Amino acid sequence: MGKVAARGAVETITAQTWRVGEGDAREHARDIPCEAAIGLAYDSRPYVVVMGTPEDIEDLAVGFTVTERIARAQDIDRVSLSEAPEGWTVDILLSPSAGGAMAVARRRTQEARSSCGLCGVETLREAVRPMSPLGKGPRVTRGAIQAALAALEEGQVIGGRTRATHAAAWADAEGAVRLVREDVGRHNALDKLVGAASRAGLDPAGAIILITSRCSYEMVEKTVAAGVAVLVAISAPTALAIKQAHAANLTLVALARTDGHTVFAGAERILGE
Amino acid sequence: MGKVAARGAVETITAQTWRVGEGDAREHARDIPCEAAIGLAYDSRPYVVVMGTPEDIEDLAVGFTVTERIARAQDIDRVSLSEAPEGWTVDILLSPSAGGAMAVARRRTQEARSSCGLCGVETLREAVRPMSPLGKGPRVTRGAIQAALAALEEGQVIGGRTRATHAAAWADAEGAVRLVREDVGRHNALDKLVGAASRAGLDPAGAIILITSRCSYEMVEKTVAAGVAVLVAISAPTALAIKQAHAANLTLVALARTDGHTVFAGAERILGE
Repeated sequence: MGKVAARGAVETITAQTWRVGEGDAREHARDIPCEAAIGLAYDSRPYVVVMGTPEDIEDLAVGFTVTERIARAQDIDRVSLSEAPEGWTVDILLSPSAGGAMAVARRRTQEARSSCGLCGVETLREAVRPMSPLGKGPRVTRGAIQAALAALEEGQVIGGRTRATHAAAWADAEGAVRLVREDVGRHNALDKLVGAASRAGLDPAGAIILITSRCSYEMVEKTVAAGVAVLVAISAPTALAIKQAHAANLTLVALARTDGHTVFAGAERILGE
Repeated sequence: MGKVAARGAVETITAQTWRVGEGDAREHARDIPCEAAIGLAYDSRPYVVVMGTPEDIEDLAVGFTVTERIARAQDIDRVSLSEAPEGWTVDILLSPSAGGAMAVARRRTQEARSSCGLCGVETLREAVRPMSPLGKGPRVTRGAIQAALAALEEGQVIGGRTRATHAAAWADAEGAVRLVREDVGRHNALDKLVGAASRAGLDPAGAIILITSRCSYEMVEKTVAAGVAVLVAISAPTALAIKQAHAANLTLVALARTDGHTVFAGAERILGE
């Protein structure tokens, strides 16, 4: 393949679009999201490669570390990004006091867990790991959820140009969106968001997370690991995601659209309009 | 967590739906797709766990083996499915003559590649592997593409009930859909389809594959590995997917909807209406 790294999040290409009844196809320019191999290393030891949009890579590194429960954000001393011929490499340097965390990372390297929270795991027992149940978390009105959804729609820079990326947003309990992150991969978008929030010092205890994608169990697992008690997804959840949300005391709202939403778990945190 | 395996593809749960302006939420039953841990083993050696919809698991096993280039379909002697407390296990028994293939599988176990074609890979160089370019492949009319798209929409059994799964379809060059497979994961849906086509003895040389999802580079890689020269995706491709399609001589059609489609690579295989 040669060089597959791409600078920036968007590339403009030429394509041929054809419409029913129009006869010939028409050539036109179109913005397409970039996707590149991003290698994550801990203390210079390669850990995993994810395919993602090469933007906010440092956020991705911090977020992945947190949501995959490799180490806490405060155990990260430095994140160091470099471009390679085949993509990007980001080295996560853990503090010497996080020796236990690094031991965990070493063990997990054998298991080779990845950004989707599971791939590379070899045995069923490793697949769905127990989670520590969340604390009280915020109380959120339906109006706040709808306001945050509208702001998420507005806040998608790459998505606005390409209509082809996933996004995740961090909002307060009043529905004010504080951060938005985007990626071609839904797991990466969430990891970037959690990393960005952590680097900005935002408190997860009062926050809600919104995602443009459907909600498989890994999205629940990552949100719980980030310490956020309310997850809002635009598309549907899986049965396992709902079960895990109940088990972890997570409020799971999905099918969230401009005209309403559906609560699948933790309805006690949702207030009226 | 206890038991996370689920029999069947769909579960009916109760949720609370709220609509803007309606005041109180309304409880109702809703069909939700199942998601379970599915462990793949070669000759009883655990290889990887994927999260997927527990239906057509044997197809998934055969398709994964082919699209991840672990072994050829004809090297598989038997596929043996068993239920475990935590999910499902499928053992893929390779023929003794496929000793070389098993050596590959052993090596790849170290790398712990997974269903998304990448996760678990530790170094950038392993991430985007060279592909053998496709042969001539079929010539396909725009009308055939549109007909196959309509049949794919009709053929989604789980999707029809849940509106929350991905699907992949195998069609001939005239647009007649021969097989449809579904899963909560887009990679799994494609793997199930390739496995089902292989088990049914369908010839990839004249076939086209359609997917309901967006087209990241792994979908291109898997389609090329299956020997199919035309890939049609409902959503957008990434820049890397387009580059890989050019490199492998794959025809990549995307943004395929009822009113038309866009050709991103290999337009020479597409004929007029």
